Amino acid sequence: MGDERGRLLAQRRRPSRLSEQPERDLAELADEARALCAEAGLELSALRGVGVSAPGPLDPESGVLLHPPNLPGWREVPIRRLLGDRLGLPVQVENDANAAALAEWRFGAGRGFQHVAYLTMSTGVGAGLVLGGKLYAGNLGMAGEVGHAPVEWDGEPCACGRRGCLEAYVGGAAWTRRLARATPAGSRVAALAGAPERARPEHVVEAAREGDAFALSELARYNDYLARGLTALVLVLAPEVVILGTIPSAAGEALCLGPVRAQVLARVWPRLARELRIVPSGLGPQLPYLAGLCVAMESERSLP
Amino acid sequence: MGDERGRLLAQRRRPSRLSEQPERDLAELADEARALCAEAGLELSALRGVGVSAPGPLDPESGVLLHPPNLPGWREVPIRRLLGDRLGLPVQVENDANAAALAEWRFGAGRGFQHVAYLTMSTGVGAGLVLGGKLYAGNLGMAGEVGHAPVEWDGEPCACGRRGCLEAYVGGAAWTRRLARATPAGSRVAALAGAPERARPEHVVEAAREGDAFALSELARYNDYLARGLTALVLVLAPEVVILGTIPSAAGEALCLGPVRAQVLARVWPRLARELRIVPSGLGPQLPYLAGLCVAMESERSLP
Repeated sequence: MGDERGRLLAQRRRPSRLSEQPERDLAELADEARALCAEAGLELSALRGVGVSAPGPLDPESGVLLHPPNLPGWREVPIRRLLGDRLGLPVQVENDANAAALAEWRFGAGRGFQHVAYLTMSTGVGAGLVLGGKLYAGNLGMAGEVGHAPVEWDGEPCACGRRGCLEAYVGGAAWTRRLARATPAGSRVAALAGAPERARPEHVVEAAREGDAFALSELARYNDYLARGLTALVLVLAPEVVILGTIPSAAGEALCLGPVRAQVLARVWPRLARELRIVPSGLGPQLPYLAGLCVAMESERSLP
Repeated sequence: MGDERGRLLAQRRRPSRLSEQPERDLAELADEARALCAEAGLELSALRGVGVSAPGPLDPESGVLLHPPNLPGWREVPIRRLLGDRLGLPVQVENDANAAALAEWRFGAGRGFQHVAYLTMSTGVGAGLVLGGKLYAGNLGMAGEVGHAPVEWDGEPCACGRRGCLEAYVGGAAWTRRLARATPAGSRVAALAGAPERARPEHVVEAAREGDAFALSELARYNDYLARGLTALVLVLAPEVVILGTIPSAAGEALCLGPVRAQVLARVWPRLARELRIVPSGLGPQLPYLAGLCVAMESERSLP
């Protein structure tokens, strides 16, 4: 809960213990929103709107969540209507990459710019785009799917069913699957993880900081493929800022951002390269709260 | 010369016999504009504005042509000011890919849509983008450079100095260079061209229509790489329509558009694929005139 200057007045984090009954889950969420208001000493009616940042695909026009692959039982759920009826407030729904892009643009690393791309890089990979100072969602709200742009034609299989997608190389889930089979038994990565098959990207980052050769080669591969995907994105959109979430933000300048930036800048026009910023998230743990807040603010913007 | 409904009132085509003295060339162009007005029975003062579609890079804000590689002597030329002073009219300058995209969006294959990508595919390859019913030019007007998106990492050398760019495979100039060395002496392509080293894309298209094996294999290669580039473009932007100029328009449905469309649709989300149109230019030989007209109309739009 926050104001239009990005100040958070109250916040609450809860595990997404969703049942397969969306109406019940949304009723619970509405109760939590009321409790959060009470905690902050505010009437519900003092709020101007509610923003929902949810995994896609969803239709922001109607506020309907379509069929998110990771939420069983949630198909064609009219979140805007269900939550709006319970709270008596306008509800705006956006996919999480778009919501994060809005938050970084308004309050984070994209502040003050007109053309901003934010890449969510946790389980999957997707971009939220602010172009010309406005969220750009494309046809059916499906823009920003750079995670499935081909970086190696007919390369590694991707969770989407196709091959060679950026996400198949730099998505957290794909990388974790690769590490389970590729991590050498005696390596530092395996030691940090407890066992090779439990190795995860964060173990690679930690081992790379210690100079481990396997970890460094894994990161070099990650950076190369990320640079390929970003090169295509930057050439098509000519953004002023590209903001990289999760893994690159955690790995930091020396291990990831620096090498990726150098590769991308070498592949785009010098005039554009001189102005292009490739930076980590500017909001850290506040990002999810500000993402929801910014979605609520979009709702206000779209009022007549 | 035309009106806001896209009706051309008068038009003139002239070879671009430019000297290396931009001021003199622009003075001549201004004289031609006056002559064209007289021919159409109109006073110059009856015009609302002038649109210039020029090869980039240029700065549409200031109307300055920066340093187009194919116009020797033309560096940092303030076209808007020079032409505006001579004609006493507002002048708007846009790069040719953007101008063509505006024309296709207003009057051609992109009419009625909000999100349109037009690919110019003659000597080089570039996209003009209309997103959310507005020209999108990106930072420094440099968006749409899909011609330099990598489709084969470290692949063929490109005129831009890098390797593996889309343009290095499907640009007219690059393909012509390849044909000069790859066309078999006894082939139908060589016969149509007069000699292998004179083979050009149009000879390939013609020979392919006659079923020539070498021509068909060249077109298959062309289509594959074009599909790679378009897949990345479509995933990032989720346009409603992708309009392909020159070579694909000339090669037509069976030899190019059909195979390219099939490959791209198979690589993007089914929901997006169902609505995505990949089509040839809808304006044909009228495109350059309407492009200039649409640039002039942009000037009107941007008045306060």
